[in-house]
Amino acid sequence: MTLIALLDHAAVLVFALTGALVASRAQLDIIGFAFLAILTGVGGGTLRDVLLDRNPVFWMADPTYLAVAVFAAFVVFFTAHLIESRYTAILWLDAAALSFAVAAGARIASTLDQSASIVVVMGTVTGCLGGLMRDVVANEVPLVLKQGELYVTCAVAGASVVALAPLVGLDATVTVLASAALTFALRAGSIAFGWRLPVYKSRPPRR
Amino acid sequence: MTLIALLDHAAVLVFALTGALVASRAQLDIIGFAFLAILTGVGGGTLRDVLLDRNPVFWMADPTYLAVAVFAAFVVFFTAHLIESRYTAILWLDAAALSFAVAAGARIASTLDQSASIVVVMGTVTGCLGGLMRDVVANEVPLVLKQGELYVTCAVAGASVVALAPLVGLDATVTVLASAALTFALRAGSIAFGWRLPVYKSRPPRR
Amino acid sequence: MTLIALLDHAAVLVFALTGALVASRAQLDIIGFAFLAILTGVGGGTLRDVLLDRNPVFWMADPTYLAVAVFAAFVVFFTAHLIESRYTAILWLDAAALSFAVAAGARIASTLDQSASIVVVMGTVTGCLGGLMRDVVANEVPLVLKQGELYVTCAVAGASVVALAPLVGLDATVTVLASAALTFALRAGSIAFGWRLPVYKSRPPRR
Repeated sequence: MTLIALLDHAAVLVFALTGALVASRAQLDIIGFAFLAILTGVGGGTLRDVLLDRNPVFWMADPTYLAVAVFAAFVVFFTAHLIESRYTAILWLDAAALSFAVAAGARIASTLDQSASIVVVMGTVTGCLGGLMRDVVANEVPLVLKQGELYVTCAVAGASVVALAPLVGLDATVTVLASAALTFALRAGSIAFGWRLPVYKSRPPRR
Repeated sequence: MTLIALLDHAAVLVFALTGALVASRAQLDIIGFAFLAILTGVGGGTLRDVLLDRNPVFWMADPTYLAVAVFAAFVVFFTAHLIESRYTAILWLDAAALSFAVAAGARIASTLDQSASIVVVMGTVTGCLGGLMRDVVANEVPLVLKQGELYVTCAVAGASVVALAPLVGLDATVTVLASAALTFALRAGSIAFGWRLPVYKSRPPRR
Repeated sequence: MTLIALLDHAAVLVFALTGALVASRAQLDIIGFAFLAILTGVGGGTLRDVLLDRNPVFWMADPTYLAVAVFAAFVVFFTAHLIESRYTAILWLDAAALSFAVAAGARIASTLDQSASIVVVMGTVTGCLGGLMRDVVANEVPLVLKQGELYVTCAVAGASVVALAPLVGLDATVTVLASAALTFALRAGSIAFGWRLPVYKSRPPRR
């Protein structure tokens, strides 16, 4: 299995865990868990593949992705009561999945010889859209747009590593790992230490 | 007209009726009715066709689908005040549309020689996504994820009939009718008699 | 640059301004502004291109679209505090973007020799879906479905100009300008003078 396939599977697995945890907060049944797990797990990558016109879509080419997401749903269904704070678990698992998905998505676009800006967009779409679908469907406040936290910023930064790597001749494996590491570090810093960019304020800076 | 085309038209018509009924609850004008009727009627099948890379999408290949959805919008616009409980009407029409759409969607994937898991996913996507789009756009609680009811489960069960039929050499017409019947029976049982799967509970089963 | 490309760029720019203004109401950071600006700016046209199977999608073929949306995000981030009523600004900019996008979207479908009904649908999708995505993601009441206002109606009317133009042998440039003008006039009349269609009322007209 290539590094990209590994990261892609890891992203689907961990995003699926977050989808199932959201399902547990909504007290759904096991099929509801599987539905949200699959939607969250493959949502971002599916949009990426439709936009890049990759046929078939990744989880249709390789059904283990669906099996991985259903497995995640089962695991959460029977173990979520052991978790002290499911919201904290969602936050951190989502951060890990984001970093895997951004690196894999950007690298896939890059291997298709897309321009740097499209590589950044595809990394961001792969990373951010599955979680966004999960939150919109489950009617939670989207993590992507939560005020005063870095989220899309982490994805853009991580994907930029892949977009800029050819300029400095970086090795593909190193590039992908650096991309995932930067994405995770920024997101973790934002969750744990409150790192953020200045947010827009309605009032002008000076009176 | 083949059985599949008939079921597909029936699914669009009946889903469109539910979209228009939701529009009547939101007190929209006739074009708003048509918009929600078309979105609900063709939403699930459109996503199915995009994922399966079927070109053109079914309602672009045959514009009668759009005409059917607009017709449903007109009918509801002028008759919805005669209905005692529009919510009950939405529930039962949605159940009928779900069963038509699941059978048609799964059968279409099956005739394209997709694997069993993809047949199940496509039946489920065709059946569940149009209603989900309707509910997300109209800001209603999605029927798909309503706690303590079978919904996605009915779709998965119905689509599985189509996925498994080749193993027992079932005739295509019988397969499709059995798929729709099973989907509807499960959904009807859930609405009328409270059939459900165990839902996730925050507390562990034993203290 | 052709008239269509000009209108398409204008639609992306002005829709992106509305996305960034919504981001300012949610007090996001600059990357959050860019995310909502891009989603709103290219959302409708992307769905149009996926449905029409145009490859690559317009903003992948020409990255200036993304640059235009990011530019709009920067402009709003640093100037939104100067605007007295951001809601009014969103309403009117959205009306302008709608009229550009409807005309461009319908014309693109028409040059692909699509039937009249598909031309109307593609104009409406291009015009209405970006704003709908913006409102669903930001959890605002969708402008598209706001009770007692013309919105989808304006798009359908404007796109119909393009669909019907071949019947009267109208020049392409005149057609596109007339389509945008009609869309804007109807929407402006609805915002400023309360023009509307009769809305559905729960009670029957006579007792």
